[in-house]
Amino acid sequence: MDQDHLRALFEQVRAGEVDIDAAVIRMRHMPFEDLGFAKIDHHRALRHGMPEVILAKGKTPDQVAAIAGRLLENAPNVLITRVSEECARLVTTELKGGEYFPLSGVLRFWRDRTIRGKGTVAVVSAGTSDIPVAEEAQLTAEVMGNTVDTIYDVGVAGIHRLIHNRERLMEARVVVVCAGMEGALPSVVGGLVSCPVIAVPTSVGYGASFNGLAALLGMLNSCASNVTVVNIDNGFGAGYVSSLINQL
Amino acid sequence: MDQDHLRALFEQVRAGEVDIDAAVIRMRHMPFEDLGFAKIDHHRALRHGMPEVILAKGKTPDQVAAIAGRLLENAPNVLITRVSEECARLVTTELKGGEYFPLSGVLRFWRDRTIRGKGTVAVVSAGTSDIPVAEEAQLTAEVMGNTVDTIYDVGVAGIHRLIHNRERLMEARVVVVCAGMEGALPSVVGGLVSCPVIAVPTSVGYGASFNGLAALLGMLNSCASNVTVVNIDNGFGAGYVSSLINQL
Amino acid sequence: MDQDHLRALFEQVRAGEVDIDAAVIRMRHMPFEDLGFAKIDHHRALRHGMPEVILAKGKTPDQVAAIAGRLLENAPNVLITRVSEECARLVTTELKGGEYFPLSGVLRFWRDRTIRGKGTVAVVSAGTSDIPVAEEAQLTAEVMGNTVDTIYDVGVAGIHRLIHNRERLMEARVVVVCAGMEGALPSVVGGLVSCPVIAVPTSVGYGASFNGLAALLGMLNSCASNVTVVNIDNGFGAGYVSSLINQL
Amino acid sequence: MDQDHLRALFEQVRAGEVDIDAAVIRMRHMPFEDLGFAKIDHHRALRHGMPEVILAKGKTPDQVAAIAGRLLENAPNVLITRVSEECARLVTTELKGGEYFPLSGVLRFWRDRTIRGKGTVAVVSAGTSDIPVAEEAQLTAEVMGNTVDTIYDVGVAGIHRLIHNRERLMEARVVVVCAGMEGALPSVVGGLVSCPVIAVPTSVGYGASFNGLAALLGMLNSCASNVTVVNIDNGFGAGYVSSLINQL
Amino acid sequence: MDQDHLRALFEQVRAGEVDIDAAVIRMRHMPFEDLGFAKIDHHRALRHGMPEVILAKGKTPDQVAAIAGRLLENAPNVLITRVSEECARLVTTELKGGEYFPLSGVLRFWRDRTIRGKGTVAVVSAGTSDIPVAEEAQLTAEVMGNTVDTIYDVGVAGIHRLIHNRERLMEARVVVVCAGMEGALPSVVGGLVSCPVIAVPTSVGYGASFNGLAALLGMLNSCASNVTVVNIDNGFGAGYVSSLINQL
Amino acid sequence: MDQDHLRALFEQVRAGEVDIDAAVIRMRHMPFEDLGFAKIDHHRALRHGMPEVILAKGKTPDQVAAIAGRLLENAPNVLITRVSEECARLVTTELKGGEYFPLSGVLRFWRDRTIRGKGTVAVVSAGTSDIPVAEEAQLTAEVMGNTVDTIYDVGVAGIHRLIHNRERLMEARVVVVCAGMEGALPSVVGGLVSCPVIAVPTSVGYGASFNGLAALLGMLNSCASNVTVVNIDNGFGAGYVSSLINQL
Amino acid sequence: MDQDHLRALFEQVRAGEVDIDAAVIRMRHMPFEDLGFAKIDHHRALRHGMPEVILAKGKTPDQVAAIAGRLLENAPNVLITRVSEECARLVTTELKGGEYFPLSGVLRFWRDRTIRGKGTVAVVSAGTSDIPVAEEAQLTAEVMGNTVDTIYDVGVAGIHRLIHNRERLMEARVVVVCAGMEGALPSVVGGLVSCPVIAVPTSVGYGASFNGLAALLGMLNSCASNVTVVNIDNGFGAGYVSSLINQL
Amino acid sequence: MDQDHLRALFEQVRAGEVDIDAAVIRMRHMPFEDLGFAKIDHHRALRHGMPEVILAKGKTPDQVAAIAGRLLENAPNVLITRVSEECARLVTTELKGGEYFPLSGVLRFWRDRTIRGKGTVAVVSAGTSDIPVAEEAQLTAEVMGNTVDTIYDVGVAGIHRLIHNRERLMEARVVVVCAGMEGALPSVVGGLVSCPVIAVPTSVGYGASFNGLAALLGMLNSCASNVTVVNIDNGFGAGYVSSLINQL
Repeated sequence: MDQDHLRALFEQVRAGEVDIDAAVIRMRHMPFEDLGFAKIDHHRALRHGMPEVILAKGKTPDQVAAIAGRLLENAPNVLITRVSEECARLVTTELKGGEYFPLSGVLRFWRDRTIRGKGTVAVVSAGTSDIPVAEEAQLTAEVMGNTVDTIYDVGVAGIHRLIHNRERLMEARVVVVCAGMEGALPSVVGGLVSCPVIAVPTSVGYGASFNGLAALLGMLNSCASNVTVVNIDNGFGAGYVSSLINQL
Repeated sequence: MDQDHLRALFEQVRAGEVDIDAAVIRMRHMPFEDLGFAKIDHHRALRHGMPEVILAKGKTPDQVAAIAGRLLENAPNVLITRVSEECARLVTTELKGGEYFPLSGVLRFWRDRTIRGKGTVAVVSAGTSDIPVAEEAQLTAEVMGNTVDTIYDVGVAGIHRLIHNRERLMEARVVVVCAGMEGALPSVVGGLVSCPVIAVPTSVGYGASFNGLAALLGMLNSCASNVTVVNIDNGFGAGYVSSLINQL
Repeated sequence: MDQDHLRALFEQVRAGEVDIDAAVIRMRHMPFEDLGFAKIDHHRALRHGMPEVILAKGKTPDQVAAIAGRLLENAPNVLITRVSEECARLVTTELKGGEYFPLSGVLRFWRDRTIRGKGTVAVVSAGTSDIPVAEEAQLTAEVMGNTVDTIYDVGVAGIHRLIHNRERLMEARVVVVCAGMEGALPSVVGGLVSCPVIAVPTSVGYGASFNGLAALLGMLNSCASNVTVVNIDNGFGAGYVSSLINQL
Repeated sequence: MDQDHLRALFEQVRAGEVDIDAAVIRMRHMPFEDLGFAKIDHHRALRHGMPEVILAKGKTPDQVAAIAGRLLENAPNVLITRVSEECARLVTTELKGGEYFPLSGVLRFWRDRTIRGKGTVAVVSAGTSDIPVAEEAQLTAEVMGNTVDTIYDVGVAGIHRLIHNRERLMEARVVVVCAGMEGALPSVVGGLVSCPVIAVPTSVGYGASFNGLAALLGMLNSCASNVTVVNIDNGFGAGYVSSLINQL
Repeated sequence: MDQDHLRALFEQVRAGEVDIDAAVIRMRHMPFEDLGFAKIDHHRALRHGMPEVILAKGKTPDQVAAIAGRLLENAPNVLITRVSEECARLVTTELKGGEYFPLSGVLRFWRDRTIRGKGTVAVVSAGTSDIPVAEEAQLTAEVMGNTVDTIYDVGVAGIHRLIHNRERLMEARVVVVCAGMEGALPSVVGGLVSCPVIAVPTSVGYGASFNGLAALLGMLNSCASNVTVVNIDNGFGAGYVSSLINQL
Repeated sequence: MDQDHLRALFEQVRAGEVDIDAAVIRMRHMPFEDLGFAKIDHHRALRHGMPEVILAKGKTPDQVAAIAGRLLENAPNVLITRVSEECARLVTTELKGGEYFPLSGVLRFWRDRTIRGKGTVAVVSAGTSDIPVAEEAQLTAEVMGNTVDTIYDVGVAGIHRLIHNRERLMEARVVVVCAGMEGALPSVVGGLVSCPVIAVPTSVGYGASFNGLAALLGMLNSCASNVTVVNIDNGFGAGYVSSLINQL
Repeated sequence: MDQDHLRALFEQVRAGEVDIDAAVIRMRHMPFEDLGFAKIDHHRALRHGMPEVILAKGKTPDQVAAIAGRLLENAPNVLITRVSEECARLVTTELKGGEYFPLSGVLRFWRDRTIRGKGTVAVVSAGTSDIPVAEEAQLTAEVMGNTVDTIYDVGVAGIHRLIHNRERLMEARVVVVCAGMEGALPSVVGGLVSCPVIAVPTSVGYGASFNGLAALLGMLNSCASNVTVVNIDNGFGAGYVSSLINQL
Repeated sequence: MDQDHLRALFEQVRAGEVDIDAAVIRMRHMPFEDLGFAKIDHHRALRHGMPEVILAKGKTPDQVAAIAGRLLENAPNVLITRVSEECARLVTTELKGGEYFPLSGVLRFWRDRTIRGKGTVAVVSAGTSDIPVAEEAQLTAEVMGNTVDTIYDVGVAGIHRLIHNRERLMEARVVVVCAGMEGALPSVVGGLVSCPVIAVPTSVGYGASFNGLAALLGMLNSCASNVTVVNIDNGFGAGYVSSLINQL
């Protein structure tokens, strides 16, 4: 309810077209509706220019299907993350048009494929084990209307591989970098490009990687000033922000 | 040395204008120069469209002055962070035109004040104790050519203060949010705006804040998808990235 | 054994009605009884005005059933928490009148439904994934004789949802707030109400949530002064204390 | 701005007594005022029935004095915590009527001494080193209008000392327990009383106390169900919540 | 090889009864024998007056059986800890005389039941969930020749239960205390008795117990000076040391 | 108040020698006295056969002197730990007979030098930097009536030094081992002797020693079964327990 | 592409033998090839004189087989680590000549068995549970062309076992030491030998071993100066570096 | 005492040249001498082919001078690390020939300057703030007889600087890499060279660097297989091991 609507409401009140009780009720009416276990906000898509998103983890397949079904009535595109194979089977059976990516566990309804991004989003991964997280970023950026260029397996211990791809990196408007273990890749990429770099620590590694903590700390301490960081394994968040930046 | 220069060099070699030893040497010639204790890269400013930056912490005042002096020969703007009062005194005595901000410990040489940003960068702080970090972000974004709108003391425990400033927030092209203690502000701001939000955890707090760890973890786990995070107290990094985004 | 009983005992000794050995023994007789593997304290219900509680985790279904059976002989209401489905099946088969809530894993014998609370306990959850913990709080507060008002899915990234419920919150005598991830909700709720807020961090999240540590630290550092905290996922404890406060 | 005021405003608009622009502006007018570096909310006292509070740490003595001066114009009682001796000297020189407690670093303006609490708040400390934190709780609860009973140096390794004070504990309406090292006291107190217990871990200890972390974790894992926890050394928060509970 | 043997060897060399090569070989001959994957030291029993012990975790059932069989040829008593049910079945089938305790996972061959301890070892547990660890301590102390008095379910939140058992505690020559969650029991017991107390943190708890870390830190910070600590869930170690002390 | 006293009291009540009010009062009379800021328990010495102990850290020199003065009226020996030089000067000026050890910060009043231990307590340190902690253990064990044998600078990287002292170690009835850095010494000593070993991690080290955490964890995980652990730098606790064991 | 090749290329360009476009392309041609999901660098073997290595964890059996097949076309020896039994079955079925070691999970293709090391690599383990990690180190060092001497089960609590093997240790040119729990063995070995020692913390242990953290910290704080450390359970890395050193 | 000496001793015993008591004593005579507070091992230099080393931290200047003086009687070279300026002044006054390096706090007596290393040790630092640690490594390697090539300020965010120095790196026989913040440099260097790389995390950084923890974890998780790690800021250890490797 923006200022114009408010002004219009006041005018209707003054004109006697709307009585006071109704005015109070209308001001109370917030733009969401109650589904019982989850308040769905149909205006979010409007606000962020973006598909509806469901985090499947911690929800039953039935809950996921119910929420997705409701959202698909209003939104052309719906992205569901952290989807188990069993959950994917149920949802894609009940709701047509979904595509499941088992590597990243993403289930995507991509009905409006308009390109809204002004440039390319590069998604880079250090090792093959980081690809699931990178894929989540890629699928997110795509469904939000961006052209994505993926550059995989360019870890820092073989620096020539990365440098070989330097031109592709420099053509991107924003770069997402996914890396586990020591998480050094965003710093090197950050030094090669002049655009914003979104670093995604992955839980790839063992022992003193402490499930991604080592990579996370490394990225937060990056000596490259154009690097910001999202949560461990949060490919979705990185794809989301990369899209916001690419559409500015 | 991009591809065109390489092609040109080859042509000069073929034409006999450049002999082979000279060609090899030119290919070796990297764009930095050696100052003994620090390799200064004059091309960095070019690459990132951005002033030279010195982190004073861990360097002696003399080292800071020497590096700053050298940089000022080529760059119009130089930003020095984490500067003690003693160091500031020395540097501003030796090098004219610097302005020192004791709250944030920033020393700024701002000779080229062209506005390069396409919109406004909003810098938000939760409490008065977070202002030093917020100021570092503000001064950084400004020296990089951005209009900055600062909104201070709008912590989440008095949510109406924040909502009161909602329109200013929504007018920003990118928002920097500095908060210590529980670090909850970026999530709330992230829900109010649709642009990228850069969260800066501060070391404000005591006890279980563990010098900013609580705020850092909170921000990394933000339920708002448009939030990315930089290191604790890294106002500079947040200002830097906000500028990159605002100039896209 | 309070002071009056002691005085009475002395009088009986002086009067020769009780001999000295018996007096010593009676003073030794403590108000609990030994079941072999667990000392059950029937007086606890008396002391705290509250049903008997069993933590099922770490006990075999048979142990749970044995303790519950013994308690139900004296207490009208028994609450069993962290009950697996298998354990619930055994206990509800052996002991009639129990109701099992699979989401929260609570098994409740609620035979005396007197309302003892003076006002309403509000139980708030940030996301749908936090509902199991919130439900544990709700069921606990109810079985202790309180009217509970549940407000679910009002996380801080959609602050208008919370504000929409502000009046319900302000009507509560004490508020329980369950949130995972960044755990920011108690601070915002704490700023909206003037009654005590009991914050329950949940283990909802991934990566740097470190199984609820991020939410826990956030809540401990809350900038709202009316917030106290219980253990991660401890919906029971929050419900318990909310009842104590509501019955003051 | 509650519902009645809103209704009244609409009526004035309908009656033509307030024109639309003025109505919009009045709805915007939030109940706080801007001091430059800190937004002071005069309504907070109203909302929480409680004195204004300033955290001096992280503010200059001048800032503290300025905020305190402004607050004292409207509020009878002002509590300033974490005040250095130097800061206390400046503030008590500029503003008359303040009393400084060097042990806890509290500076208190206590002009309205009405008792609002319905019972007694007991403040308990495990060792003599925990007294500074306990005193902060005591002074807070007092300035908020409560009768406080302090019971100091009753650590668990001499359990008879605590039991000796059992009756005083049982007479309290709410108990604050401050303990460092292993932080075991709240569990024992919690088992002795049936009212809410607010546990305050202190940073007293060395080595594996990790500045209060051991006590904090111990209290969060208390096997007594009536215990909630605040931040390490947060005597203020414990006193604050104890007052809210005691005045219910 | 003690000094007397060495002296004897020298005498034999001087007397020509042993030639030099044989002497060198004999000095090299260390009192252990090689089984391929594990060097078994038959003298250890001698050195510590104690049964042979095998940690089954990390070994295959076949390895456990092989080592146990070899040890039983020389030692009357063998204690195997952390034994799965499957492993227990194999070992007790192959080797007669073993008794398996599924709660603690101990498998015990107790053929020599001489009492060597001078007094009683008390083994105390806070809750029923701590009994597995307490049982490991009890079984260890018994097999090493001690009379053990077990006192279970006397957690600090019901302090009268513990005080009820004070005399049994005071009769012990050494006390083992097992507790999870906040780990407060050793401090209280330590204050009640004047003998050494060995504290065993258990991994019982959830959330901020961090698998026993809270209890461990609490015990290390005990304000009772007669408390020492062993590893989380290390009932064996506590039983072992209690036996050493009891046999002094 | 043991059982005999209780019985006697009852007899006096029956005989009419003590009236009931007086009996109640006598049962209430606990064996400690209130000094205002610290409850001193004169019976503790009795209970543990041991001098009074004051932890000076966190107390003002005046508080230390006051408590010490009061204790010295009843106890022959008083041990004060963590004493600064300034505090030592004040206390030794006010109270005669104290000896200050600046290395360990111990101030000792040792007036009753009876030997009560049955054997020798060996105190071992890994490096010269660990000596302050070892000295605290030594002084504690001595003042409690034990003969102490100190073996310093026998770290594991020069294993022959330790083995050289093996016989002295084997003659001890209990061994205290102080080590920082990797904290490996207790394991090696534990393997050499068959008596109890009390391990004291010290905060000696840098970087990943994390102020003694590395040594602490190492000792808790010792593969020698006769090792128990006390807090980082807690030489006092180790000396205390070693005395309890040596006097069994 | 070293300097000689570059010079030659320039000469060919000058001579007109290579035209400019071809020269640019040749300079671009980097020595790796793209397999889609993983860039394989055939020159790595050349660069490090070493077999190709695949980390199977995080890859599907099919991916492992595909990469291994490709590598075996060029490299005589291939080492695959962290291989599950199921994965091993698939790979050894598809590719002949592989040997699987279930203890360490290593799958080895060892076709070129030339000895390249100048001395012996000793691989030492503290307990039998550490053997899997030690075996990974051993198999790695062997496949890289080294003679390996394994010394197992020589933990520090039985120091004579280690000293018994001192001569074998002193004959090694480099020593790998694998230990879990307190991780003390590398310090003792480091003091016995004068060559480099590579310490491998293992995740063997429980409770406060925190999955190898205790051993890791211990080794990083080793008081023996010839010790360096690799990641927890990283037998491969230790074997790899030991080979590099042994072939210098 | 090696086998030959032992054999000789036996022969002397058989020949009657040495009587048995003397033989026993000689076997006991260990190669170290007792200075009271520190056992100095003159054979260590022999064993490791290396100068004597003193860690000054935690020792008084007088202790340092005493130990250094004693060592200089036997060893040509003595290295003292972590020396404060005050300590350096005292030692260099008492003992002639020492050179103090204030940046790294090293005090070096370098009287025998023979080169014993077979190649060059490269010492690399990421930033200028890492130079103190790098210098400690350099001075250590030099005093042990190595030629050192220092390459400073080649952090990964300016990867061309590092590549520019690739040939110098490839000429080294072993490389020491010092880096703080994200600690990414060793991985990149490890990928460029084929010799062993010793990584030294430094405490350079702030916030989430946690005093070097981020760099330490990063290096332990390096994806380059030729990297081993020493403690945070342990330049000495890295220099020491690099020398051992270079002299193999």
